[in-house]
Amino acid sequence: MKIYKVDKTLVSTNRIAMMEHKPLLVVREKDGGTPQVAVDPVGCKPGDWVICCGSSAARDATGVKGYPSDLTIVGIIDKWEVPQDADTTS
Amino acid sequence: MKIYKVDKTLVSTNRIAMMEHKPLLVVREKDGGTPQVAVDPVGCKPGDWVICCGSSAARDATGVKGYPSDLTIVGIIDKWEVPQDADTTS
Amino acid sequence: MKIYKVDKTLVSTNRIAMMEHKPLLVVREKDGGTPQVAVDPVGCKPGDWVICCGSSAARDATGVKGYPSDLTIVGIIDKWEVPQDADTTS
Amino acid sequence: MKIYKVDKTLVSTNRIAMMEHKPLLVVREKDGGTPQVAVDPVGCKPGDWVICCGSSAARDATGVKGYPSDLTIVGIIDKWEVPQDADTTS
Amino acid sequence: MKIYKVDKTLVSTNRIAMMEHKPLLVVREKDGGTPQVAVDPVGCKPGDWVICCGSSAARDATGVKGYPSDLTIVGIIDKWEVPQDADTTS
Repeated sequence: MKIYKVDKTLVSTNRIAMMEHKPLLVVREKDGGTPQVAVDPVGCKPGDWVICCGSSAARDATGVKGYPSDLTIVGIIDKWEVPQDADTTS
Repeated sequence: MKIYKVDKTLVSTNRIAMMEHKPLLVVREKDGGTPQVAVDPVGCKPGDWVICCGSSAARDATGVKGYPSDLTIVGIIDKWEVPQDADTTS
Repeated sequence: MKIYKVDKTLVSTNRIAMMEHKPLLVVREKDGGTPQVAVDPVGCKPGDWVICCGSSAARDATGVKGYPSDLTIVGIIDKWEVPQDADTTS
Repeated sequence: MKIYKVDKTLVSTNRIAMMEHKPLLVVREKDGGTPQVAVDPVGCKPGDWVICCGSSAARDATGVKGYPSDLTIVGIIDKWEVPQDADTTS
Repeated sequence: MKIYKVDKTLVSTNRIAMMEHKPLLVVREKDGGTPQVAVDPVGCKPGDWVICCGSSAARDATGVKGYPSDLTIVGIIDKWEVPQDADTTS
């Protein structure tokens, strides 16, 4: 699993029907990193550091069998020290 | 899921039979980025910013059980601010 | 799916039995790029630009249930303009 | 499989229910490398060099059918010479 | 599939029970490249150039249903010319 910081909620105009039941969040490995989109079954808020599961396990981790996710939040980290190589400008 | 910009429709001379029922689009993570090919079950047009699902979930997300996709568009983003590190020259 | 150029046929001395029934081609994302090996159920020739499917979908895309592939050619592209960032020296 | 060095135990405030039964460790490919999170069914301690399995195989490797992992420790390496390109400052 | 050179046998002190029945080899994409660990159901020796299958197909390719592998050797290449960009110093 990788560690991401929650950036914000993602608003999409038109999703496939299978995706309609879960919030999608924009997450980044570090501030300024490439944005990715994760399914959030945990209930996170911007600024949280979270553990995300990818690969085929991301599907069941949503709690909905067969949900089409390749990145799902599976936990919130209590205290996370940003690694030295990460950007800490925000 | 990752975020891509739709570039154009991809025309292929000869596809395997399993792939014949869905449009294929060329998508890029940013203008000038490496082109990838995504299955489009949503109905996108060039210039749209879209959410794409990879891994094994890309298959069912096409809406056709067992479709051989490793990248499928699952949503169109309403408004997307291009991240600062992306190329915006086009 | 990603786009590759077919380089040549790959000859292997000793394959696992499950792999014996399909041709393997060396493909590259661009001239001079890292060589990868794709299963070819379509019938390609060197110089063709092809669409390759990875992940778990690469298996069924071979046309043989349970074939052990992680990269399978699923279509030949009619006309492909090499992106500007690609090496065109060959 | 890739080779990682165990850094420390990861404490998360709120995990999905499916993840509650196994310890999670922070692992890195080399000292100072990007931290990743692996499920540990073997029983490792900080400083151990371990083999981690990703992809869909990471799930069953936890020993719990359907566990939502994309990175699971599957073995401890007896003696591992750090490759020359790795950082050895710690 | 990717192409690797076999480096050496990997000795691990403690493996999960599911992994005990197959040899593990350290492989590299080129001399000096990052070491990875592949399951070897073919019978390779150090110096061999091999084809490795990843993703979910790596599991069945071991010949043991449900084996927890994400990288499995599926063939030995007869003659492999090292690409120009590879390090040939060893």
